[in-house]
Amino acid sequence: TFSRGIQTVTLIPGDGIGPEISTAVMKIFEAAKAPIQWEERNVTAIKGPGGRWMIPPEAKESMDKSKIGLKGPLKTPIAAGHPSMNLLLRKTFDLYANVRPCVSIEGYKTPYTDVDLVTIRENTEGEYSGIEHLIVDGVVQSIKLITEEASRRIAEYAFEYARNNQRASVTAVHKANIMRMSDGLFLRKCREVAENYKDVKFTEMYLDTVCLNMVQDPSQFDVLVMPNLYGDILSDLCAGLIGGLGVTPSGNIGANGVAIFESVHGTAPDIAGKDLANPTALLLSAVMMLRHMGLHGHANKIETACFDTIREKKVLTKDLGGNSKCSEFTADICRRVQDMD
Amino acid sequence: TFSRGIQTVTLIPGDGIGPEISTAVMKIFEAAKAPIQWEERNVTAIKGPGGRWMIPPEAKESMDKSKIGLKGPLKTPIAAGHPSMNLLLRKTFDLYANVRPCVSIEGYKTPYTDVDLVTIRENTEGEYSGIEHLIVDGVVQSIKLITEEASRRIAEYAFEYARNNQRASVTAVHKANIMRMSDGLFLRKCREVAENYKDVKFTEMYLDTVCLNMVQDPSQFDVLVMPNLYGDILSDLCAGLIGGLGVTPSGNIGANGVAIFESVHGTAPDIAGKDLANPTALLLSAVMMLRHMGLHGHANKIETACFDTIREKKVLTKDLGGNSKCSEFTADICRRVQDMD
Ligand SMILES: CC(C)[C@H](C(=O)O)[C@@H](O)C(=O)O
Ligand SMILES: CC(C)[C@H](C(=O)O)[C@@H](O)C(=O)O
Repeated sequence: TFSRGIQTVTLIPGDGIGPEISTAVMKIFEAAKAPIQWEERNVTAIKGPGGRWMIPPEAKESMDKSKIGLKGPLKTPIAAGHPSMNLLLRKTFDLYANVRPCVSIEGYKTPYTDVDLVTIRENTEGEYSGIEHLIVDGVVQSIKLITEEASRRIAEYAFEYARNNQRASVTAVHKANIMRMSDGLFLRKCREVAENYKDVKFTEMYLDTVCLNMVQDPSQFDVLVMPNLYGDILSDLCAGLIGGLGVTPSGNIGANGVAIFESVHGTAPDIAGKDLANPTALLLSAVMMLRHMGLHGHANKIETACFDTIREKKVLTKDLGGNSKCSEFTADICRRVQDMD
Repeated sequence: TFSRGIQTVTLIPGDGIGPEISTAVMKIFEAAKAPIQWEERNVTAIKGPGGRWMIPPEAKESMDKSKIGLKGPLKTPIAAGHPSMNLLLRKTFDLYANVRPCVSIEGYKTPYTDVDLVTIRENTEGEYSGIEHLIVDGVVQSIKLITEEASRRIAEYAFEYARNNQRASVTAVHKANIMRMSDGLFLRKCREVAENYKDVKFTEMYLDTVCLNMVQDPSQFDVLVMPNLYGDILSDLCAGLIGGLGVTPSGNIGANGVAIFESVHGTAPDIAGKDLANPTALLLSAVMMLRHMGLHGHANKIETACFDTIREKKVLTKDLGGNSKCSEFTADICRRVQDMD
């Protein structure tokens, strides 16, 4: 169904540099003749009936219909009680899996050259339950909630992902030596699901050991699956290994076929509107999106063009070590994409 | 009081390679004429009255008297219900601060050359509370417990450490954007304590951001203070940056002046007894211990000798890239120490 005709994607340009990097992506998609039609929406939360924060109905409806979103960075307004936009989106669309492929980019200098792994983070529960109590004065507890259902769901996603992306192994990351019941449950579900994927190797590793080994030799890792907070940490750590959030794509997979792809860097208000931003993270997220939609040809073309531009080092934005504008970097990628025809 | 006469230190050689690396340290201390007398004790837990696991009374009494321990790696017996020896020691002596200086070692190749930071981990509560519940079938909760008292205590330790070790800044590492009450309390205490240490710069940073920035440029960090689990992760990550647990020292500071210094690597049963082990982590932990005892001259001498041996690359154990025996590596350090007189 995905490969027929033009498909609609909900575009959430976001704040700060969001609009200009979104424009860059749209230009490159146009050059690549990607069969995508954009439906632009604003998601900044509003107060709904009963005073609950919600994303505007036009955005919700667009996503419900298109099922696929591409999102730039969002600023969370500092209005009292305003929820984190990221958390609100995760909740609204039950985006249970955060997926971050981290692959070393040739020509972009970092201390590592052979990173090729994917972090898969449970995105709905765990340490992010939001349940906290004051027990007595000066004593506070936060509750980490782990359920069988969410653990099985994320484990299944991880193994499906590994199988569909020719990945050899899945490693469950945990601290079940300390949190025996909660991480124990998570781990048990991973083990159970692993039984159904005999073609994918399954291993288990303590989070602290993963961190230590990761900075010593990231090439030993493949697909990593883990509870919410561990994923928050490891996904950023791994982004650091390949050059930071400016070059790291991200996808959020939800129930009912919904998925939102996003750059996870900030809104960079200091350079917003100055044609200086680096659109790479959003572009590579859009490439993930194309693959998710089954449009592999367009995905490969755009990705190759982007990596070629970076490797050639002639037209780079400032953060990538060059002194070109966002529009020049974009134009260079467009030219390459067109040359491939 | 610390610098007068010979002082007793409780030596816990530990299991596997523990005895041979302990012997190495004792030899080097002798060569350096360190005014230390060792009292060797075994801490492997026994079942006490009422069936509770405890460390043997002779070990407890030795530590209560000497106040200072040096400990090799311990194997946790797999007897049913046997507690982790590390956790039991932390509890027995209220070892509330785990301190790990991570400094790049000249001549030992890693992707980083300019690491010079210290992680200070709250070691008694947080995610390690051990409190977990089954709510209903398939739903489990673990409780993270944060108290005002423990948070203030660790914050004070961190600032005192910074001041006494000529460190310019302390960074509190947290996720108070998610765990608003618990990490919020921890952070508030850090801020309050910071008020009393105007000579030390105080900053705050999200754990995920620290991880990302750490692998991109560790040189930006100085003293880091954080709750238990975050410290578990970050201390291992930072050990990875300088070459792993084989070269990373560690100290555990307790209430009532007790402190235990330890190598945090494993017992390496595969090479135990073969004169192949690397004593560096235990030796550098012993150097931390000497500094803690005010014996800076002896500490500097031994540390310099150890680093010189590593930098010269002539006599190295296998894990350090050489093919010398533990005893040869030890002898080389002894020789250097004696040459300094
Ligand atoms: C902004 C914040 C709520 C978020 C998180 O902690 O999950 C961020 O760090 C992320 O990884 O998306
Ligand atoms: C062995 C285990 C209980 C321990 C921990 O998780 O604290 C270890 O990882 C450490 O850092 O000392």
